[in-house]
Amino acid sequence: MGKYTAPLRDMQFVLHELLNVEQELKALPAHADVDADTINQVLEEAGKFCSEVVFPLNQVGDREGCQYHDGEVKTPTGFKEAYRQYVEAGWPALACDPAHGGQGLPMLMNNALYEMLNSANQAWTMYPGLSHGAYECLHAHGTPEQQRLYLPKIVSGEWTGTMCLTEPHCGTDLGLLRTKAEPLADGSYSISGTKIFISAGEHDMAANIIHLVLARLPDAPPGTKGISLFVVPKFIPDADGNPGARNGVRCGSIEHKMGIHGNATCVMNLDNAQGWLVGEPNKGLNAMFIMMNAARLGVGMQGLGLTEVAYQNSLVYAKERLQMRSLTGPKATDKPADPIIVHPDVRRMLLTQKAYAEGARAFSYWTALQIDRELSHADESARKEAADLVALLTPVIKAFLTDNAFLCTNLGMQVYGGHGYIAEWGMEQYVRDARINMIYEGTNTIQSLDLLGRKVLGDMGAKLKKFGQLVQDFVEREGTREEMQEFVNPLADLGDKVQKLTMEIGMKAMSNQDEAGAAAVDYLRVVGHLVFAYFWARMARIALDKQSSGDTFYASKLATARFYFAKLLPETAYHIRAARAGAKSLMELDAELF
Amino acid sequence: MGKYTAPLRDMQFVLHELLNVEQELKALPAHADVDADTINQVLEEAGKFCSEVVFPLNQVGDREGCQYHDGEVKTPTGFKEAYRQYVEAGWPALACDPAHGGQGLPMLMNNALYEMLNSANQAWTMYPGLSHGAYECLHAHGTPEQQRLYLPKIVSGEWTGTMCLTEPHCGTDLGLLRTKAEPLADGSYSISGTKIFISAGEHDMAANIIHLVLARLPDAPPGTKGISLFVVPKFIPDADGNPGARNGVRCGSIEHKMGIHGNATCVMNLDNAQGWLVGEPNKGLNAMFIMMNAARLGVGMQGLGLTEVAYQNSLVYAKERLQMRSLTGPKATDKPADPIIVHPDVRRMLLTQKAYAEGARAFSYWTALQIDRELSHADESARKEAADLVALLTPVIKAFLTDNAFLCTNLGMQVYGGHGYIAEWGMEQYVRDARINMIYEGTNTIQSLDLLGRKVLGDMGAKLKKFGQLVQDFVEREGTREEMQEFVNPLADLGDKVQKLTMEIGMKAMSNQDEAGAAAVDYLRVVGHLVFAYFWARMARIALDKQSSGDTFYASKLATARFYFAKLLPETAYHIRAARAGAKSLMELDAELF
Repeated sequence: MGKYTAPLRDMQFVLHELLNVEQELKALPAHADVDADTINQVLEEAGKFCSEVVFPLNQVGDREGCQYHDGEVKTPTGFKEAYRQYVEAGWPALACDPAHGGQGLPMLMNNALYEMLNSANQAWTMYPGLSHGAYECLHAHGTPEQQRLYLPKIVSGEWTGTMCLTEPHCGTDLGLLRTKAEPLADGSYSISGTKIFISAGEHDMAANIIHLVLARLPDAPPGTKGISLFVVPKFIPDADGNPGARNGVRCGSIEHKMGIHGNATCVMNLDNAQGWLVGEPNKGLNAMFIMMNAARLGVGMQGLGLTEVAYQNSLVYAKERLQMRSLTGPKATDKPADPIIVHPDVRRMLLTQKAYAEGARAFSYWTALQIDRELSHADESARKEAADLVALLTPVIKAFLTDNAFLCTNLGMQVYGGHGYIAEWGMEQYVRDARINMIYEGTNTIQSLDLLGRKVLGDMGAKLKKFGQLVQDFVEREGTREEMQEFVNPLADLGDKVQKLTMEIGMKAMSNQDEAGAAAVDYLRVVGHLVFAYFWARMARIALDKQSSGDTFYASKLATARFYFAKLLPETAYHIRAARAGAKSLMELDAELF
Repeated sequence: MGKYTAPLRDMQFVLHELLNVEQELKALPAHADVDADTINQVLEEAGKFCSEVVFPLNQVGDREGCQYHDGEVKTPTGFKEAYRQYVEAGWPALACDPAHGGQGLPMLMNNALYEMLNSANQAWTMYPGLSHGAYECLHAHGTPEQQRLYLPKIVSGEWTGTMCLTEPHCGTDLGLLRTKAEPLADGSYSISGTKIFISAGEHDMAANIIHLVLARLPDAPPGTKGISLFVVPKFIPDADGNPGARNGVRCGSIEHKMGIHGNATCVMNLDNAQGWLVGEPNKGLNAMFIMMNAARLGVGMQGLGLTEVAYQNSLVYAKERLQMRSLTGPKATDKPADPIIVHPDVRRMLLTQKAYAEGARAFSYWTALQIDRELSHADESARKEAADLVALLTPVIKAFLTDNAFLCTNLGMQVYGGHGYIAEWGMEQYVRDARINMIYEGTNTIQSLDLLGRKVLGDMGAKLKKFGQLVQDFVEREGTREEMQEFVNPLADLGDKVQKLTMEIGMKAMSNQDEAGAAAVDYLRVVGHLVFAYFWARMARIALDKQSSGDTFYASKLATARFYFAKLLPETAYHIRAARAGAKSLMELDAELF
């Protein structure tokens, strides 16, 4: 059941009308010759692949799940074959370094690809998705020999990758990890320990699986300063770079989970597995953070993907399902009842999904473009500027988009009434799949602490000011246009409030760190809305300019912007109050009296 | 995994300290001799049954689900035996009419029983739960013969009951229903049609299943004014009242659902099934609404039950799980990390569950007491007053408590981090089970339309004024107490705001009905908070009075009240704004342009 069509028109709007990507890429030597037509063709092709090959496997993947038997994992029917096609079409290489066989296209395009893949099938997409993290990590920190050995196979998709961080007693708190790495005579290491929650840790889709594993050297200092990173292949590459001897890293079991059933979540037992150090000893967490940041943006795209597909399917249902008459009198007089899209609250549920999907697309594509600028801009100050914005907004992408996606998949399901709760309609799967995105790669609480503690207060608001400047410039530029008042005024107002709120929390946190911890989650939602209000105001501006073109796309965009400002932005009134309420009411009760 | 302990101390606080139940019941002749000791003993016994017999079946019920084979349904391991014990202990009869074998205790006690049953196992509880609806319907509308035939068996629990409303093309809009009832020579009817989503429609736990079925007589007017109610037993009782001939009502299949796997959600095919009219022809919907209102309160108790059990289990985990150090410095210095309950946001997640559980308990027990007053008070004006309050607040109980329960079960799961997503820990089941409560027995949107359209605007605010009077009396009584300011002031303020908001929406809705539809969901949340603020202020008052007693229960209660006012009540700032934003941004976009 269900359908997915890549939202190419809106993607093109964001890329070309909002972001002027062709122009922007001209400032990046590596991508200067990527033109709009190329981008559009690639995305159209990707969209077709997602709709036709990956989406039809979504429900079967959920129903069958992965099967574990004696250390091996069988993925659901069709997963392996779809992955073969994905590799053959060259999709894994899209945004990889040409030096290792990549196509060298912008990250932005990879991001758009991943939006569509996640709409089509999040569980399947996690297999190639995690490889990309391993690619980035080895690309940034691997020795030339490691790069030569692993990168071409990961880039081509022949091999996949994982990140092995979590252990039973430590997830958020990696300082507690116990996996040990003993040096061997040949310069490699013997690694032993147990890792859990390893997505795509074992499967039948690729010839080899390259694990990036955090472990401790014998002389390592305790805590996070004593963690090193190792590459631990399932099969040790032989002299020709082909999978050779089976390594001592084995899947002990897979988890039964709420959702993403098609992806194998593995317990990985390392029993004197041979590994090679990546980067410097005891600096493993730094190396891993490159992967984590990429992964956090990737999780944001999972949120966007699910929001979009839930919206598309609930929209179809809302137009078809006949139930009750409009409160203002019958609309479909030739039918026994009106389609439920006539009802205001059904429209609220649809428009919330639409506004959050389109807002997330604008925000995340813009952020991906900043990553390309960070990586490839000719000018160093532009690279630094972009890097700061990416660092600031990564936790917002991860947490705000996934919180919204959980809300939106639930609204999509709610539109279906009782049918939404029934598996065959496909809507409840989106809710179950969306739920993990608020947890993994750092819970959304951890994201909020990263935003408020590290990214905002950590540099006395310097990075936040950079984003604030974008908002202020826009407000000053557009503030005089009569028809932009309805967008610019609340945007400017929220910008001021965020500034005040930040200072207030900063002051309180100086005398009591718990004040930051108490405000962080509310604070992130307020910042998320500031970002969304900024992009919705920019999109409204374009729609106003073009609404007379006769293309109804702009009428739809404008109405969605108005809905966003009228019905969603007011959530900030709640979170500003809650953030300002401080830590006292959270901390005063003794733990024993709960 | 997991645990459930009946929260007897808090139940006793609500019953005896907040509601003064013993005193209140003295004004109800039917219950005048029910004393506090009896109530406490019954609830303690019920709590034991829930923890020891029903709770251990919760996870197995989810994992196994119901098995359908050739018209028959096998319930999960242990369900049948637990039901046998439930019947033997006499629990089904608790609040039933002694004229039909009931124990005649107050509804209030039944409500408390159901809170605990739902904490222990919502899917199992739905089997006896739906019987109670059938009992109430036949008790109010059945002929003496029908009552004689069915009620004793339903009261004893030997037989269970269902409500058969929904058809594939109609859920909310019962006016569209097609099931036909043809009169037979003996005064009974031959009924044919298909019903879906029939909870407990078929199972192996009882000797007979009594369906209450909505259908149309041959000459019935179209729409909701042509619907009649019939009793359709699975086995037609013989002359001795024992199950006799198999009737033509059969389960065609069961649904695969997101949650409540242990409860059979049935497609019921009626093929010339023999049925008997209940109440007047074409007045079936009125009769059914008695059941619906009871069911809606019952769904609210499902919400409370799940909130409580999610809270209990996440609290255990938060005290045990060691991860990171407190932001203000190590607390458990003898351990490698601090228990996560030291972190402000973990406390937010715990206190949100605690505040919503305890608030829901106060509100719903008070409402159940109003039902007892409505049914049994000696004074007619008191009965009328209570009936109005129950009518007003039933949709709030249903929607506010179940929305909160979904939020809270998700927070409970989030406290577990990655483990929350894994089935064996049991937390994700609560989320999946809680999700249906926002949909069935009238979606929460329908509840909000019932509240705003029918209950509030429908009588020009008269019923709302009755609740408002309670708030105002409290504010006036307590407003002079210095230490109550922090509770009374925001309560009074919200009371004023609700009044203004109601008038504003009422005015707008007079010229455009969609204005009510656009505001309803936000409006219900605001009213829900007004109710919670009222009960939390009342509870705070008691806690303030007794905090010097040395019983730390009151310190906990007071801290939770403060948390509620500081961190949860501010949500009203959002919903008041969203409600005031009106219908325009929802309605202006043409359906084709979504």
